[in-house]
Amino acid sequence: MAQNNLEDRIRDYGNAAHMLQNSQVGPYVFPVAPQYTNWIEEVRAWRNGAVLLNQSYHMTDLYVRGPDTVKLLERVGVNSFKGFGRNKAKQLICCNHDGYVIGDVILLGLEDDEVLLIGRPPVSHWVAYQAEISGLDVTTELDVRSLETPDKPRKLYRFEVQGPDALKILEEVNEGGPLTTKFFNMGEITVAGCKARTLSHGMGGAQGLELWGPYEEGEKVMARLLEAGQKYGILRAGARAYSTAAMESGWIPSPLPAIYSGDRMKGYREWLPANGFEATASVGGSFQPDNVEDYYLTPWDLDYGRVIRFDHDFIGREALEKMADRPHRVKVTLVWDREDVLKIFAGMMEEFPAPKLMELPAGHYAAHPYDQVLLNGEMVGISTYPVYSANERAWISLAMVRGDLAEQGTRLSVLWGEKDGGTDKPHVEEHRQMEVGAEVHPWPIHEASRKQYRAQT
Amino acid sequence: MAQNNLEDRIRDYGNAAHMLQNSQVGPYVFPVAPQYTNWIEEVRAWRNGAVLLNQSYHMTDLYVRGPDTVKLLERVGVNSFKGFGRNKAKQLICCNHDGYVIGDVILLGLEDDEVLLIGRPPVSHWVAYQAEISGLDVTTELDVRSLETPDKPRKLYRFEVQGPDALKILEEVNEGGPLTTKFFNMGEITVAGCKARTLSHGMGGAQGLELWGPYEEGEKVMARLLEAGQKYGILRAGARAYSTAAMESGWIPSPLPAIYSGDRMKGYREWLPANGFEATASVGGSFQPDNVEDYYLTPWDLDYGRVIRFDHDFIGREALEKMADRPHRVKVTLVWDREDVLKIFAGMMEEFPAPKLMELPAGHYAAHPYDQVLLNGEMVGISTYPVYSANERAWISLAMVRGDLAEQGTRLSVLWGEKDGGTDKPHVEEHRQMEVGAEVHPWPIHEASRKQYRAQT
Repeated sequence: MAQNNLEDRIRDYGNAAHMLQNSQVGPYVFPVAPQYTNWIEEVRAWRNGAVLLNQSYHMTDLYVRGPDTVKLLERVGVNSFKGFGRNKAKQLICCNHDGYVIGDVILLGLEDDEVLLIGRPPVSHWVAYQAEISGLDVTTELDVRSLETPDKPRKLYRFEVQGPDALKILEEVNEGGPLTTKFFNMGEITVAGCKARTLSHGMGGAQGLELWGPYEEGEKVMARLLEAGQKYGILRAGARAYSTAAMESGWIPSPLPAIYSGDRMKGYREWLPANGFEATASVGGSFQPDNVEDYYLTPWDLDYGRVIRFDHDFIGREALEKMADRPHRVKVTLVWDREDVLKIFAGMMEEFPAPKLMELPAGHYAAHPYDQVLLNGEMVGISTYPVYSANERAWISLAMVRGDLAEQGTRLSVLWGEKDGGTDKPHVEEHRQMEVGAEVHPWPIHEASRKQYRAQT
Repeated sequence: MAQNNLEDRIRDYGNAAHMLQNSQVGPYVFPVAPQYTNWIEEVRAWRNGAVLLNQSYHMTDLYVRGPDTVKLLERVGVNSFKGFGRNKAKQLICCNHDGYVIGDVILLGLEDDEVLLIGRPPVSHWVAYQAEISGLDVTTELDVRSLETPDKPRKLYRFEVQGPDALKILEEVNEGGPLTTKFFNMGEITVAGCKARTLSHGMGGAQGLELWGPYEEGEKVMARLLEAGQKYGILRAGARAYSTAAMESGWIPSPLPAIYSGDRMKGYREWLPANGFEATASVGGSFQPDNVEDYYLTPWDLDYGRVIRFDHDFIGREALEKMADRPHRVKVTLVWDREDVLKIFAGMMEEFPAPKLMELPAGHYAAHPYDQVLLNGEMVGISTYPVYSANERAWISLAMVRGDLAEQGTRLSVLWGEKDGGTDKPHVEEHRQMEVGAEVHPWPIHEASRKQYRAQT
């Protein structure tokens, strides 16, 4: 039978979990240069100097417009939308009917009746679908990330200027309007004669800003930022530096969207194409369940329990109300044991097959990395995205662990690599599994970031 | 003053060695995908299965045509050209007037009066220049590698099929003519209805073939090779696998061309552009002389002494005749000590700055990597191109060492990293130097390659 949609594809494969585990598509790629100078100094720049991150390409943008825009957000979002409107921003969390996470995106209130959702594709697709079936008075416009349509220019440029010297540079280039620097508030500045809208948030414990405007103006704005940044030694962050930023910040970019099972999601799976992001996405790592639902995460797993508000009706509300008082996993940073990390690299110099090699600086090998966290051989959590942090001078990952194991200093381990030599993902070399010791730390791992991220004034 | 040529650029910088050491251009890049599956299996394929290497893009091609073609070759080449003509191939070695190496290329006799030179740019440029000033009856045509002109298609596709299963695949696809498999002999086959010319040489101890034809036919030929190769599990080698092939084979790809000094080369430097390959090339590593001539290599350093023939007049002949009986360095493979390699990787997890990080699988960080080889703190040779060989399960480099130190098992060390925290090359992170123990081995390191490479029958 022809595969017209995701539902067909799963039917033909026979098992959604196995389909994802053996996908032929590799990890999520940042479509910018791997490094502009060298990735180590670029990573260090957001903690010690200034860095420019070009976000114009790697995310999917969805515009929602119309009088029912906020109604649609209320339908799909666990967040409260009281007082939401122009120049307000949020991290929007969407769940399925059973309360499991479909994904999260940055939500920008462009106007009172126009919002922009920025993130990986699953939430944009889900919201566009809900707009279509809801009968609400909204229109949507999808601006697909450049990886999928490299020849189509984006609508917006989006840059981030971060690091302890970021505000000095931004003040220097700003030709009008106050710099809005309160956490996740939006503002407007003028750079090189171009009006740009801004979102305030920081990296590495310092204040920073995201700014955007029409794509055509991006070159001019970037030139001005780099020119003003020169005396602060500003560096551009390439894809490799970028790939470690989220883990230092404590953001898990890639919950597998909870859409692959269940009758209530069947209509959506039939709406999604057979070759889209969700259908070809790969899952990698030692957590290899046969039931795709075992991958699903709750908002609490991802530390989004704090944004759920039962002040409106939304998809998943009933299920989340039931879950609310149950025990939840806790999100933590794991710092991998130096000696065990070296055993992985030593494997290069031992007989083949060796432990799964970790690429520098990002060791994961699938769009959705899921490794088992173990305590005395028993699975007590899930670890995602092992990366090397050139600031922390350590390999770290973000994990969701049993609540009683979240205390700093708790000793756990990560089961590294896939069973039986590895799955059929072509970019995974034959390897053997090994246990890597790890220590629990809070997130974000950097003391300064943890204390100051939401305290920006 | 305006910089019109290489000579101007050196004059303005003031010191050629320092100019090259602080170049803003990174290592030589292979303009093909980093990996098609994963680089570890791709490297293993040329020793254990079959691999297709696409050489259509990364080399510079120079065509020389006309009745005086062989006369021009005799003028520039240290090799003998007795019996050279159609379907003969050679590794052509060119020296400057003082007998120092400008470079080497593969020379293919397309017709008796038409040859093709394939390699890094320096030899092609030098031969084109000599053609121009010699007054000989030849014309030249430069087909520049794709990295420099990505939008201009090449004239030829060139593929290499290698590995123990290569000949089985080639026999299967060959629709006409015998497979010529004698080392460095040329032949002609037909694949997918397309005539292709061939050059016989192997990798990893097995017989293989290079084949080429009009660029437009490449897609069809590759499709057929991959189709026939499927049952042998043929893999395509990406840029990362590729970057380790030369070191396993014992070929030093990057002698710095001996053109940056001397009155007799001044005319050539004025002929070369101010922004070409030679002018922007980078040198990296712990060998950091102030005099650019200290980088220059003799044919014996590179083990090309064996091809010098004083049976014709050529540039550098007089100087080489004088050098011939002096003691020469000997080319060897160095196998880096496992424990010291791990200290480099451990540096990631120590205070910044750490030892110079080695990227996987190629650790060098300049177009021309030159590291000091030490014995008890005294420099006794030069090491180039540290790479990880997934076949040898070791980090190796090719080195040129004092003749009495070339015996297998000799213990030496490599000074890894640049002095004083590193040069100004932007892709070099601040680092500290360290000594890495190494053991001398022959080249090519693989027993089978060493014995069989020239024995192909």
